[in-house]
Amino acid sequence: MKFKANIAGVGMTRFMKYPDKGLKELGSEAVQLAVADAGLELKDLEAAYVGNYAGGLVADQHSIRGQVVLNSMGVGKIPIINVENACASGSTAFYQACAMVTSGLHDVVLALGVEKISHEDKSKTFAAFAGAMDVDELKTMIADLAKKAQENGSVEGAGGRSMFMDIYASAARAHMERYGTTKEQFAMVSAKNSFHGSLNPNAQFQEVLSVEDVLNDRLIVDPLTRCMCSPIGDGAAAAVIVSDKKARELGIEKPVHVVSSVMHSGWDHALGELDTVQLCATEALAEAGVGANDMDVIELHDASAPAEIIGYEAIGLCPKGEGGKLIESGATKLGGRIPVNTSGGLLRKGHPVGATGLAQIHELTLQLQGRAGKRQVEGAKLALAQNGGGKSGNDAAAMIVTILGI
Amino acid sequence: MKFKANIAGVGMTRFMKYPDKGLKELGSEAVQLAVADAGLELKDLEAAYVGNYAGGLVADQHSIRGQVVLNSMGVGKIPIINVENACASGSTAFYQACAMVTSGLHDVVLALGVEKISHEDKSKTFAAFAGAMDVDELKTMIADLAKKAQENGSVEGAGGRSMFMDIYASAARAHMERYGTTKEQFAMVSAKNSFHGSLNPNAQFQEVLSVEDVLNDRLIVDPLTRCMCSPIGDGAAAAVIVSDKKARELGIEKPVHVVSSVMHSGWDHALGELDTVQLCATEALAEAGVGANDMDVIELHDASAPAEIIGYEAIGLCPKGEGGKLIESGATKLGGRIPVNTSGGLLRKGHPVGATGLAQIHELTLQLQGRAGKRQVEGAKLALAQNGGGKSGNDAAAMIVTILGI
Repeated sequence: MKFKANIAGVGMTRFMKYPDKGLKELGSEAVQLAVADAGLELKDLEAAYVGNYAGGLVADQHSIRGQVVLNSMGVGKIPIINVENACASGSTAFYQACAMVTSGLHDVVLALGVEKISHEDKSKTFAAFAGAMDVDELKTMIADLAKKAQENGSVEGAGGRSMFMDIYASAARAHMERYGTTKEQFAMVSAKNSFHGSLNPNAQFQEVLSVEDVLNDRLIVDPLTRCMCSPIGDGAAAAVIVSDKKARELGIEKPVHVVSSVMHSGWDHALGELDTVQLCATEALAEAGVGANDMDVIELHDASAPAEIIGYEAIGLCPKGEGGKLIESGATKLGGRIPVNTSGGLLRKGHPVGATGLAQIHELTLQLQGRAGKRQVEGAKLALAQNGGGKSGNDAAAMIVTILGI
Repeated sequence: MKFKANIAGVGMTRFMKYPDKGLKELGSEAVQLAVADAGLELKDLEAAYVGNYAGGLVADQHSIRGQVVLNSMGVGKIPIINVENACASGSTAFYQACAMVTSGLHDVVLALGVEKISHEDKSKTFAAFAGAMDVDELKTMIADLAKKAQENGSVEGAGGRSMFMDIYASAARAHMERYGTTKEQFAMVSAKNSFHGSLNPNAQFQEVLSVEDVLNDRLIVDPLTRCMCSPIGDGAAAAVIVSDKKARELGIEKPVHVVSSVMHSGWDHALGELDTVQLCATEALAEAGVGANDMDVIELHDASAPAEIIGYEAIGLCPKGEGGKLIESGATKLGGRIPVNTSGGLLRKGHPVGATGLAQIHELTLQLQGRAGKRQVEGAKLALAQNGGGKSGNDAAAMIVTILGI
């Protein structure tokens, strides 16, 4: 979908575990930062789209999460719409906010992604991840795992933590078999993103890891070690979207243009090929009239390290099967031809589910405006964000690719 | 917000308890009916907005409820966005679908509201209702009720079932004290709506009740008897929204025009005055350039009988305090000056939370197209729907008033 909207301001909390903060505290912090960054006040907001995933499952706050956060800040009256699309909830809020501005129905719209998923009772957190699948399908998967466990005399897989890592591991093994991709190449993604994360004050993890560190970490489900899986964390990210008219009024020096954004939902695809990414990227790039290799900086949904490699291929940075070679070439590291996940990605910046999509927008806005500090990609003019969520049939329940420019 | 969108087709399941049906079965039935009613096929849908409230709480299906329903029917690929606003989730889906068509971004958009809230373990159902409030506030309310119970030696209120009936009862008592409204007048609302429901094959309850029947029913919380509270039920309702261009292409004889729709969220209002209704109705009517008394048929959010009376006043059918007299005059009964809740309303048609807003649209579409059978309001040209959800601060978390015309 071709959009005509601008990012006037962004804000986010650092991603980490916040045992003493809830949706209200985290959400408010990101909103205050984004509104101030836009040079606006809370009263200027005309509508709000709020993405959250685990408010109900972990914090017992269902249904009206956006109102709870915004009313606690004194923001009321405006339409507040809660949206959900699992790990793509934040991007869904952003997409919808941009659509409302593009339509001319509003001039200033808030998009907020907020998540509180860590819990002292870890089983609550792990159970939350299961919510992003068709429950009927989930029951079958659990039964299958139990059967295998009985046959093998041991429990295989990450099922207890997140069924999604089992799915990613299976996609990774298929990629290895089919294209000769190696475990070392997956580890290179985590190592690269750890370097990027070390330059991002908002990243959950700021330690630099070597490829060996990643390989030697605890095995979660073959071939994924713990450092190849995105961590559990809390946080919030927000963006204020404005019309061209409002951007001029505000005298924003470098508004970031939302050029296009495409969302597709679960489809009958080959498991693990990330075909929805390909579909979204192809359409979003065509609408923007650019190619994947015209991008200056990219944020991919690296919920696991293999997902970044498969993502390279799906968005068209390299042909299918050559993602492993691409990470090995160094092209996607800061200083390379096309830096990917300069924020540290989901692997190192963290992945507070509903906030992730908007944190990607936060990173790319800073990059395009030359505000990314030590991790700045010099002269970045075009950027791409890819955020996916849930599982429906054989593919993501919701996939979104957005092209930003300056 | 001024809209430019048309209702091409509507469909709904009968509202009732469906022990053997889930979100998929209920949602699919409504979607199939709506799409067929529009003269379209599933493949013509360009996007879908899906409202659901209790999928997570009751059916363990979180986050991707729309995908689960639509993928089960073979609908994939299109953007599917899950929206939530407690009891206003269905209207939120409708509002968003209309906005997307108004914007020109899509020509054919599905709005679906689906709910499975009945459960063999009733405590699950009752717990679900608590999800539509700020959990922090809820804890305070529960503590207050417990304190009162200890003081009085008995548990007072409907807290165990739904905190919302306590809120409505408190608003009802305030209305009685301030304006002299009587319990009989509240009972007249339930009796009238039972007559309307008896004419609606989709209504959960089809028995005609007298005012005495209502008054003699079991007391839930003073002054509300059971028949003055909306029941628990499951079901789904859907509408297909199309652009003017598509409506012409389809050759729809009598497209229903969505003239305006206004949404407001929780605000610092006087409890129980339904000020958000007033705000939404005033703005929606002004945008449509009409007055409340120009309406031919109205669906109000009668989650409790007093809410309909307070609603009359809030939308401007009569001055504040005169809602009791209005019901007594017979003006809001079929055959009267301005029939309200010809469907039977939430009280008798039923209130499967996320489906309710779209069931109102279903009823008004039939009325405006002359398809309402025995409950037809002859020559209806203008209609108003009011749907509210949740509690935030002292008012509804989300309130929506929509004006439809033909």
